Amino acid sequence: MSDANGQPYANGAAYVDGQYYPIGEAKISILDWGYRRSDVTYDVVGVWNGAFFRLDDHIRRFRASMNQLQLSPPESDEEIKQVLTKLIRLSGLRHSYVGMDCVRGTPPAGAPRHPKYARNYLVCHALPWIWIAPKEKIDAGLSLYIAGPRRIPPESFEPRVKNFHWGDLTRGQFEALEAGADFAVLLDEAGNVTEGAGFNIFCVTDGVVATPSRGGLDGITRMSVMELCQELGLPLGVRPVSAEEFRNADEIFGCTTAGGILPATCIDGRILGNGSPGPISSLIKDRFWNKRAEGWLATPIDYDSPL
Amino acid sequence: MSDANGQPYANGAAYVDGQYYPIGEAKISILDWGYRRSDVTYDVVGVWNGAFFRLDDHIRRFRASMNQLQLSPPESDEEIKQVLTKLIRLSGLRHSYVGMDCVRGTPPAGAPRHPKYARNYLVCHALPWIWIAPKEKIDAGLSLYIAGPRRIPPESFEPRVKNFHWGDLTRGQFEALEAGADFAVLLDEAGNVTEGAGFNIFCVTDGVVATPSRGGLDGITRMSVMELCQELGLPLGVRPVSAEEFRNADEIFGCTTAGGILPATCIDGRILGNGSPGPISSLIKDRFWNKRAEGWLATPIDYDSPL
Repeated sequence: MSDANGQPYANGAAYVDGQYYPIGEAKISILDWGYRRSDVTYDVVGVWNGAFFRLDDHIRRFRASMNQLQLSPPESDEEIKQVLTKLIRLSGLRHSYVGMDCVRGTPPAGAPRHPKYARNYLVCHALPWIWIAPKEKIDAGLSLYIAGPRRIPPESFEPRVKNFHWGDLTRGQFEALEAGADFAVLLDEAGNVTEGAGFNIFCVTDGVVATPSRGGLDGITRMSVMELCQELGLPLGVRPVSAEEFRNADEIFGCTTAGGILPATCIDGRILGNGSPGPISSLIKDRFWNKRAEGWLATPIDYDSPL
Repeated sequence: MSDANGQPYANGAAYVDGQYYPIGEAKISILDWGYRRSDVTYDVVGVWNGAFFRLDDHIRRFRASMNQLQLSPPESDEEIKQVLTKLIRLSGLRHSYVGMDCVRGTPPAGAPRHPKYARNYLVCHALPWIWIAPKEKIDAGLSLYIAGPRRIPPESFEPRVKNFHWGDLTRGQFEALEAGADFAVLLDEAGNVTEGAGFNIFCVTDGVVATPSRGGLDGITRMSVMELCQELGLPLGVRPVSAEEFRNADEIFGCTTAGGILPATCIDGRILGNGSPGPISSLIKDRFWNKRAEGWLATPIDYDSPL
């Protein structure tokens, strides 16, 4: 897993339960309930141009998610930041996709088979930057598809606790691909849009921006978009958005750590605008990346001091 | 991970993507979508007294689940049976909990980030027999609790495809433990019972047995119970069962591979009958284990010929 120069972490670095590994050697037991019961929460923070974006916000959300699932790894918030920083320094990556998971573990032999008795631990990794879709496709505009599976409802599992319960989204992705689209968007039981497969969603109608208030993740990039709307003086509604409103919107865009702002140019086969990213989507996208280039909410990484 | 006699498979054996491992060395990549998106289906078959129970039924269900998720490992059904048999022979276990998972894998570098492009593979394991609760507790009768989370609905993810989307059940287990019960049972959005955390459910009112028709797994042990009801001349309804009917039933029992028939003696704090397993539950449980002892639907394992 090392590159041609023998750098073992060139393809990515990982931290599993206190130890560092080249990414190809980072594994978990097939008996871990993080896998066997998807009893895990996670977060993903981006490193762009040698700096984390909104690191504190991600750590805060990650800790809130862990608390909600009664997951308690040995590392403090400060130590988690140190682990993530070390992963980046080991890999040397200037642009990186940095994941942090907390898994349940497995109750020890003899203890009751209840999650309460398991020792929880962290699984973190830094990979070369991942675009959710090829950059050219993001720039040209994505094609979205409202797929059949209903998003798992908050009454079953709280989507604000970032989780790997992706069965509905995965089914949706197969449907989207068959329909010739790039990504699925799922509805809730009331027929309102929730989120896409790996991103939050916004739409724009008559100059007013809207994003669903319920049924999806409270995304950090979504929060950034909300702040940019305020800064740009764009009216924003955080409220239920029906499938019909979404399908008939003037503009649609997604947002995620792994790609930033994602204008869509097609929804369920309908071409949006003239087939190019719309003006408000583009305005937000440009402002987002311009501010990022200026160091907006960035935590620079020191690559040079000895590890 | 070997026992005192140096037998490396004494604690269990595993098969991961074509290779055999002692259970402690059986791992999957932290990047595998089987973990990262819970994009996996599984099945569990029991080995009791040196023989699989209903092996063909489990393999049939496992294959149907894989087909529904568009998962396609290299092994044929016959080869899966050979793998499971070899795991038992390696371990030497006479009583074993045998799991078979098919995971999505990860799309290769350069391919689109879509599950379609991943190479799927099997992860199987054989462990010393697991009782879902201590045997004495199963014999004395379990305490059940109808917990708050709604079971993930079939519109989001089909529960007949056996899966690791356990977030709702795990929350329910924490609630059940807090309430002093052993296991959670979850309702659907209509207020009908679905299944417990790892088992199907039945109740008995005025001599009539009932089990939910929707919202849970089509369990193989459940199927066995349905056959036993017919054999014993017990009337059985497969239909929606409301929380109220369930709470007020004369008898309640669960069933699962990891424990067989599980009479309950308490539901939401109400003691059932006289606090001992009810007569119909006990009749079915006894008949189940008596038939098992007689070799009912058993596939004996040849432990002696050379591996």
